Amino acid sequence: MIGIFDSGVGGMTVAKTIEQVCPQYPLLYFGDVAHTPYGSKSPETIINYSRRNVDFLLRQGAEIIIVACNSAAATSINKLRTEYSVPIIDVVTATASKATENTTNKRIGIIGTRATVQSDIYTQQIKQRNPACQIYSQACPLLVPLIEEGWLNKRETKMIVRRYLTPLRRHQIDTLILGCTHYPLLTPLIQKRIGKKVRLIDSSIETARYLQSFLDNSPEITSNIRKKNTNQQPHHFEKNLFFVSDSTPPLRKLANGIFGRKINLINTNANTNT
Amino acid sequence: MIGIFDSGVGGMTVAKTIEQVCPQYPLLYFGDVAHTPYGSKSPETIINYSRRNVDFLLRQGAEIIIVACNSAAATSINKLRTEYSVPIIDVVTATASKATENTTNKRIGIIGTRATVQSDIYTQQIKQRNPACQIYSQACPLLVPLIEEGWLNKRETKMIVRRYLTPLRRHQIDTLILGCTHYPLLTPLIQKRIGKKVRLIDSSIETARYLQSFLDNSPEITSNIRKKNTNQQPHHFEKNLFFVSDSTPPLRKLANGIFGRKINLINTNANTNT
Repeated sequence: MIGIFDSGVGGMTVAKTIEQVCPQYPLLYFGDVAHTPYGSKSPETIINYSRRNVDFLLRQGAEIIIVACNSAAATSINKLRTEYSVPIIDVVTATASKATENTTNKRIGIIGTRATVQSDIYTQQIKQRNPACQIYSQACPLLVPLIEEGWLNKRETKMIVRRYLTPLRRHQIDTLILGCTHYPLLTPLIQKRIGKKVRLIDSSIETARYLQSFLDNSPEITSNIRKKNTNQQPHHFEKNLFFVSDSTPPLRKLANGIFGRKINLINTNANTNT
Repeated sequence: MIGIFDSGVGGMTVAKTIEQVCPQYPLLYFGDVAHTPYGSKSPETIINYSRRNVDFLLRQGAEIIIVACNSAAATSINKLRTEYSVPIIDVVTATASKATENTTNKRIGIIGTRATVQSDIYTQQIKQRNPACQIYSQACPLLVPLIEEGWLNKRETKMIVRRYLTPLRRHQIDTLILGCTHYPLLTPLIQKRIGKKVRLIDSSIETARYLQSFLDNSPEITSNIRKKNTNQQPHHFEKNLFFVSDSTPPLRKLANGIFGRKINLINTNANTNT
């Protein structure tokens, strides 16, 4: 099975795209809602949470891990790769790769949480691919709370998006990385403010494509996943499992909204003391 | 020692007021930053976190517990009182009591996190004291992120405060409970928007006063606390201890800002896997 984790429900935008791109593989999702958000926490704390999430997914039978949270990928991906032997695919690598391919004027913007921006991981990964690129990054800590409130088109949200993007606009970027899985929900506002000539790179889409290409080139892994799930061919989305470490009504509503269908969230902490 | 816990650093506004009102007693603060915020999480999860926080403070030698977080008090105070034998003082009881005393037109407004508002605890406590009171409550989930960003006087913050307070203004309340320890930092904006005739009830101040009165009437507890801390008379604020379950530069800056002095935050999770 393909295991995916995120700090909450934002990574469901990645899971949804993977469902569409790779419908033949069953998914295991884990949203660490009890500890959300990761983006304002320290790298040490985010690494510890990420380890626990990987352990949980492996115990549930995951054969490949997707780190669907930019803050988790930015701070912990190197550690996780040294500590675990399963393949680990992360949102940052796929997205940085696409942005480097896309830019023509070599001016790339990045928006994300404070943890993602401060980790500097997008800059490092883009510079490794093309040292000539200029990178301009902007932490946007208020966008996740606004999105989680559903304020996708409110005047205040437009003003805050404007405040965050104005410095990037001045740098005349031609490519903007949406470095947080929540941000695609604000695509219309962001595109309008940054200008229609700037290409937005959606980390959900790039990660799903990267996974698809990885699976196409890893026959031993895919045959193993297929062998264990022979009764699920063709795969039915209803067999995918969605675990969360906490569950509230607004969260369930957001999950259903992302997938456009009723999602059964399994609360791993229900009736426990953890 | 007096133990205080909060979901983060907001409760430091309570700790600071207690330092001023009861300077003779040493304080132990615990901010559960690794799990912040509580206000958007489920009651079950908040109760579990609150239990762990009380256990931590008791292990450190606390003889009395202050629940300085409205979301924690609103969801877990009844459970905690049945499970622990130490005195537990909470922000809600003191604040509800003051609001009921203050109102003359019997119309009281409450602003807080979603967890606090949905718990309905302020309504219950005010109605117990005076069933004739009408209570109007408003969840304000975006205020904590705005305050934590330091956007105390930005145009967007003013607009969001206006959006949240307009329904309460229409109800012609004469008393407004600031039901979250972060909100006193927005007092000028809130007072301006709700109208200067409305009295704002600050849960930090009311809790400190309530504690002072409790201690004045509990000689056995106060003599015990004093006996163990005879070398700290008169008490020096520098002896107070501030523990946090995670630490970041913006958090340290906020803590120093609240107290107006350098606060040494002791990270209980440093170099551990929890």
